[in-house]
This record gives sequence, C-alpha cells and structure tokens, in this order.
Amino acid sequence: MTHDCSFLRDLPLDDDRYSFGDSHRAGHAGDWGTRETEEVRPDAVVWPESTAEVSAVLAAADERGVPVTPYAAGTGLEGNAAPTRGGISLDMTRMDAVLDVRPDDFQVDVEPGIMGTAVDEAVAKHGLFFPPLPSSGDISTVGGMIANDASGMQTVKYGEIHDWVLELEAVLADGSVVTAGSKAVKTSSGYNLKDLLVGSEGTLAVVTRATLELAGRPEQIRGGRAIFDSFSDAVDAISDAVRSGVDVAKIELVDETSATMANAYTGSSLPDIPMVFLEFHANHGIEDEIAFCRSVFEAHDVSRFEVGDEEEMDDLWQIRREMAFAVEAYDPDLSPLHLGDVTVPISEYPEMVRLVRRLADELDLLIPCFGHAGDGNLHYSVLVDESDDDHIERAREAQTEIVHTAIEWGGTCTGEHGIGRGKREYLELEHGEESVEAMRRLKRALDPNDTLNPGKMFPETVDGGRIEN
Amino acid sequence: MTHDCSFLRDLPLDDDRYSFGDSHRAGHAGDWGTRETEEVRPDAVVWPESTAEVSAVLAAADERGVPVTPYAAGTGLEGNAAPTRGGISLDMTRMDAVLDVRPDDFQVDVEPGIMGTAVDEAVAKHGLFFPPLPSSGDISTVGGMIANDASGMQTVKYGEIHDWVLELEAVLADGSVVTAGSKAVKTSSGYNLKDLLVGSEGTLAVVTRATLELAGRPEQIRGGRAIFDSFSDAVDAISDAVRSGVDVAKIELVDETSATMANAYTGSSLPDIPMVFLEFHANHGIEDEIAFCRSVFEAHDVSRFEVGDEEEMDDLWQIRREMAFAVEAYDPDLSPLHLGDVTVPISEYPEMVRLVRRLADELDLLIPCFGHAGDGNLHYSVLVDESDDDHIERAREAQTEIVHTAIEWGGTCTGEHGIGRGKREYLELEHGEESVEAMRRLKRALDPNDTLNPGKMFPETVDGGRIEN
Repeated sequence: MTHDCSFLRDLPLDDDRYSFGDSHRAGHAGDWGTRETEEVRPDAVVWPESTAEVSAVLAAADERGVPVTPYAAGTGLEGNAAPTRGGISLDMTRMDAVLDVRPDDFQVDVEPGIMGTAVDEAVAKHGLFFPPLPSSGDISTVGGMIANDASGMQTVKYGEIHDWVLELEAVLADGSVVTAGSKAVKTSSGYNLKDLLVGSEGTLAVVTRATLELAGRPEQIRGGRAIFDSFSDAVDAISDAVRSGVDVAKIELVDETSATMANAYTGSSLPDIPMVFLEFHANHGIEDEIAFCRSVFEAHDVSRFEVGDEEEMDDLWQIRREMAFAVEAYDPDLSPLHLGDVTVPISEYPEMVRLVRRLADELDLLIPCFGHAGDGNLHYSVLVDESDDDHIERAREAQTEIVHTAIEWGGTCTGEHGIGRGKREYLELEHGEESVEAMRRLKRALDPNDTLNPGKMFPETVDGGRIEN
Repeated sequence: MTHDCSFLRDLPLDDDRYSFGDSHRAGHAGDWGTRETEEVRPDAVVWPESTAEVSAVLAAADERGVPVTPYAAGTGLEGNAAPTRGGISLDMTRMDAVLDVRPDDFQVDVEPGIMGTAVDEAVAKHGLFFPPLPSSGDISTVGGMIANDASGMQTVKYGEIHDWVLELEAVLADGSVVTAGSKAVKTSSGYNLKDLLVGSEGTLAVVTRATLELAGRPEQIRGGRAIFDSFSDAVDAISDAVRSGVDVAKIELVDETSATMANAYTGSSLPDIPMVFLEFHANHGIEDEIAFCRSVFEAHDVSRFEVGDEEEMDDLWQIRREMAFAVEAYDPDLSPLHLGDVTVPISEYPEMVRLVRRLADELDLLIPCFGHAGDGNLHYSVLVDESDDDHIERAREAQTEIVHTAIEWGGTCTGEHGIGRGKREYLELEHGEESVEAMRRLKRALDPNDTLNPGKMFPETVDGGRIEN
C-alpha cells in the first residue's frame, strides 16, 4: 500500500525535514523486531524538530488518511516502530534536547529523541540518575521507552518507566497538543491520560516532551555474583530472596546456555553453570543487606556468593547487557524465532523457567534464558533453523506453550517490550474480549481514522479488516 | 430530576438488594464534600453483592438513560459520590470480602467495599501491609480510594494507590466486564486500562475486584517530632529533607492554627507552634537515617527534634488523623469553604505555604494548614461564617488564589481527593482545553450515554449542557 505524501511540500517545513528518497525509506522499513520479509517501506520519512511541526504533519496526514508510524532508534523487539502500510515514518531523533534540569525537584524535561544514557549524563553532576533505564539505554531513546513502558535491571527496586514519567506533552492524531500528568509528584486531577499514553506504542499520540523524575545516587553501591550447581536452586533462591524482602537493585538470572553464548560473543570466561548477578543500593547498612541476601541464597545451596569490586562488576554488567546480541550471533544457522519476554508473579517464576527448560529438552531446542528475574521477568529466545520446517514447528510449539502458560499463571505476554506486531495474537487471550474491546474504544476515541501506527497492538485493524499476525 | 427505577424489580435481584425508601434515598444524597443545599436524592439505592449484579443493573440503567452514581463510605471531600441527577445510588459496601491472600506474591484480592484498615488486618499475620492507605483508612473503602487515586501519609516513601493496584475487574456502563492490569508486577501489554480506571471517580466504570500489592513490614519503625520557632524554618526544613533524599516514611506539617484546633478537639496538649511529625521505616540502619534527618533539620534551626517511643507516637498520629474533624468542629460559627488539597513540586512547597499564611493575614481569615508535606501536598481549609457575605467573598478570593497559584507553579488542584463536583472549575485551567477534550473523548468512548456518575469531573456535562459549579 502506498500513500501520496506530496502534501508534505505544502506544510511549513524546511526542506531538510522530510525525504522521499529510497535509502531513507529503506532505513525506516524495519526495526529489531521485524524480519526482512515483513518490512514495508514508508512513502516518506519526516524528521520534525518541534511540537508544532509534529502537529502540522499529523493534522495533514490524518485529514488525508495517510498512516504515520513514529520511529526513533528502532530497537524495539516486537516490530513496534516498523510501518505496516507505508505512509509516513515520523523519525523523532532530532528532537533530542535536554530542556530543563530542576535538581531541587529531582526533575528533568527532555525531548523524546534523547538517548536514555544521555539523560543520566545530563543529571549526573547533580548527583541524580534516571533509575528505570533499560539495559539498552545507550542505544534506545526515552520516547521509545515511554512508548513501550520499558523497564530494566533496576525495576525490581525502582519500578518501570511510567513510574518515573511525571508529565508528558503529546500530539494526538488530529494535531491537537495535550499535556498529561503534573509536575507535582502526585495528582488525582482528571483522567490519568499520562499513564494511558505511556505504553500505547505510538498508537494514540506522539510524545513531544517528557518531565522525568530522578533519584539521588545511593551512597553505597555493591555488586555481586552467586553461582549455583543446580539451576533449580538458582531460580528458587531468586524467588525466595524477593519474597523475603531482600532490597536488591538488580537480580539477574543467567543460565548455562546464555553463559556459553556470552562467552562466545564477548570473549568472557563465565563458568557455564547457572548464575545470578546482583547489585545492592543503599545509603547505609549495605553490608547488612548483602548478608541477608547471602543467608537466603545459602538456604538454596549456593556454591559461591562473591561480592565484586566495581571494575569486575562493570565487566559482568556489560556482558549481561550484550546478552541479546550474544544470542543472535551464536550460530549463523540459527536465528531467534522470537526475542522477547514474558513475566509472571514471582512465586510462579521458578516453575516458569523450569517449563522453558523442559520444553527445550523435549522438543530438542536451544532456548537460552536470562532476564530480570526479580520481577518474574523471563527473557527467552527459541533459536531456530529457518530452512527446517520441522524445526520451525517445534519452535512455534515451544513459543506458544511459554506464552500461554505465562498468561494462565496470571502473568503477561510482554513485560516490557509492548505488543507491537509480534504479540498481537495474545492480546485477547491475556485480557479477554471485553477488555480488548474497551481498548479499541479508546483507540477509536483518540485516533478515529487509525492514522497512528496502524497494524499494531490489535489483532485486527480498528476498522474490522483482519490482518496477518 | 427523577428517573423511573421500577425496572429494578424485573432484574434478577433479591428484594434486599434495592430500596426506594425515603431514608435510604436521603442517606445517599450527599457525602462529606456535599453541602446540604447541594444534596440530590437518588431515586433508588442498590446494594449489589456480585459482579453479575453490578453488570445487570448498569446494563439496564444505561439502556434506559438512568444515571448511576457509585457510593461507598461517602467520605470523599469533593462530592465525588453524591448524585447530581437522581437515578441509582450504587452502594458497594456489601461487596467487602477478602477473596484471596497470596503472601508469596505480596498480593491480596479484595472486593471494593472493604474498609482500608481491614486489608491491613487481613494480611498482618503474614508480616505484610498495604502502604498507601490514606489517613481515613479506617472509615473509607478500597473502592473509594481507587476511585480517587487516594494517597496518604506514607506516600512520600511508598507512592499512591495506583502504584499498589495490580489488577482490577470493573464493569463498564453497558454492563460489560473488563479486567485491567496484570498479576505480574510489570506489564506492557495493551493499553494501561488499569491506571485509566484508577482515579476516574466512578465516571468510567465500577470496580468490582482489585488485586492489591503489599509490602513487608519493616523491621524497624521509629517516629519523631520536630518543633520549630519559625514557621518558615519548618517548611524549608521539610523541603530540604526531601530534596536531600532523607528516607522518611511520613513527614507531616502541623501549623500553629491546626495545633490549636487539634488540642480543642482531641484534648491533646500540642504546643501551638509549627511542628513536623516524622516516621522512619528501615530493615537496618534506621539510626543513621534519623541522624541524617536531624542534621538537615538542624541546618534550619529546629528547636527540638525528639524521637518518640511507639505509644507516644501512636497518640500523635491519631491526633494527625483527626485533624480534618478538628478543623470542622473548631468554631460552630465557622465552616470550611472548602476542605481539600493542592499539591506542588517540593521546591515550591515553602512558598506555597507562606502564600496561604499571607492570604490569611491580608484577608483576615482563619486557614489552618497541614498535610503530607513531603509530597508537596498542602491540606488547607478556609473557614468562613456562611451568614456573612463579605467573609464568604474574602474566603473565595483566598481559595481561588491558592488553587490558581498551585497550578501556575506546576502543581495540581487536587493531589489526592479527585475532581468530583468541587474542583471541576479548575480542570481546564490545570490541563488546558485540548487535554480536557481528550478526557471527554475517553468518557464518551466508555460511557457514551453519560450514565456513570454524571455531573462530576467535567465543568460541563458530556452532552454539552453547562451545569452549575
């Protein structure tokens, strides 16, 4: 499907704000979560530099029935930023300014195209940081994080992105500009438009400014690593630590398969046995907290519990952050059927991980497991030889079983990567028909022409025509 | 306006589920935030005992154009639960069960009519508690707290109600039953319907079940009181403590006027000088935290900083909880023009409180100030002799100045009590016309016939007819 986007020439936009060129269109046809065969080129790419420009483009596109798909770093795992029907790819990366730092209120105002780690850099001199940054914070934008209500390694202590977004400015499909939330740390004024827009994956509005809350850097930070002989002990220890109220800032599982892949990719020499990476934050008393954690882990037969110095730990966290790349790169004949996550209540976490390993055994598949264990979050990847139909079928069986079980156990098909295109088929299974219908009503209310990021989130289009999953 | 509610007799409801009796109707005509002159009797009161009953009543009322106003304890301060156009008062207090406690997941499922403190009682044996309970937790319901996204003394450390609601079951105006959120502690699946319903004051849906998250009781709890000679020092000390990252669980301001009123009401003997009540929660190292707080307070010339034993502190907290009653009861000739709150960014808090005191002086008014200072939250009450037109005018001037200034300084007209009927006139000033129009679109999407709690939240009715503020 192509759309005439020549109207862009008539808008009050400088020439450098848009392109109809092939290379720009090709560069915005996919993202990390989109296979090459699924790529759909936009008809134009627009790089707005102000809220007014975003508003002008949206209003004009909406009037003409031209789809607009917001784009930034393209690092989403569920195809969230890839167009499905051409139209405009609205690239937000030029709107990347730090607008105002208010250290007295622990607040910073930013534009959405700013990289996550650039926020941390901008506020570091005030002793502040942005706690919910995902592991991909150095290569993904705040706008993308807001779109997916992202979270990360420190979510177990500090919460998700939406917990740290105080106020948003956003443009609706018809070009109207709304502000949502408040610079007060709490409000009960009007509908919570802010948390509706966070996580709406660019299907309801385009965020143009965000006020983020910050935290003071803890006085004490200590990292550590626990090694287990038994995988079951490792996951039980994690679940027990969280349920005992151990105050961890990070608690990450790395299984044997993931360790092997990480070693191959990064040249590290992790032992290929189950590990838990830990970090503790406190202003005082950190040794007591570490001792508490150690005692819980010892009850689960931890074989080694080491508290590392900062440099050693930096290396370990770097390895952890590169895990997704390591999985992708491991074997040129194998590619991930789906790189994503499911999340379950913490008490179900050990059984959930054991299920994944049983499926790997029974179906003869390679499925590395890692992720933000303290949240009950499991990053898994079913690796598959795409030339082998039987392999694909077994991989799909495993993927279906994993997601359906997570939902059945009270969890979610996506803890931090959104629905995008990749998880649409599970939306109704997770939320039920009437809840999804309520979501559709909200979509129709704010974007009646289905202009914003169409073909995402819902298993059918809003106007009722079923599309391929 | 009256509505024929005889259709209730044709629904599958036992006789004890509804009443057309005068005393029941009169008992549901107002709430704490409604003056007697504003009271509108519902035409019927319904006490549903199941989700199915709620659904049947809503579907039938919606079809017939009969308004439904959810009701529970009636303790809202903005007239949130009082009908404006007759119809049905849907009294949720019989749905008050604890459905399931899952201590391993720090979760409890409850019905909405349960009193807040009953949740704490139900989970105490597992060493757990529900941190965001408002001060009125013993006389208000979880459903009411959810409706207003309430918060309380511990919000400075633990957050608001919406931060602790994981999943909701709710009935929309047309009787459809939705679930929103997840029992996983994080999710980015679909629109965040959960946080849209929290704080929507019964105008979008009626909550019938909630999964609440709980916290482990801290090992160490210590309370304290700081006394200042100068009011300005007290508020500066609070703001500085929060901005310095002191980890307080409660930090409450009580000004001289409030102290005098509390003494008159409770028979206490608080000194009538500015005070800050404090509570600290920790698993270890609490003395270090208290010392840190003391050092910040000393920089602001605190005259006494006392750490109390548990019994002394229980008395202080009881006095603090009864402050709203003390203000109401202080002088039979004076009644509060408006009992509510505004909330501002913490750096603006000292100036905000100083403004209120300047207005009290300049306009010769009695305006006690107290509240959850650590959140930048100010409970104030402009006391007025209702028989004196000039007094009323001066009180209105003060009220307008306070709310407008809070909004101008980046804050909100209501931090924790919702908009209800009392704050409708400020909604557009705070959020802007286009944001309020977006909220209206959401209202129309989920409740097209304006069945649920009409005459609240928006300054006009959804169908465009302006109503009195």
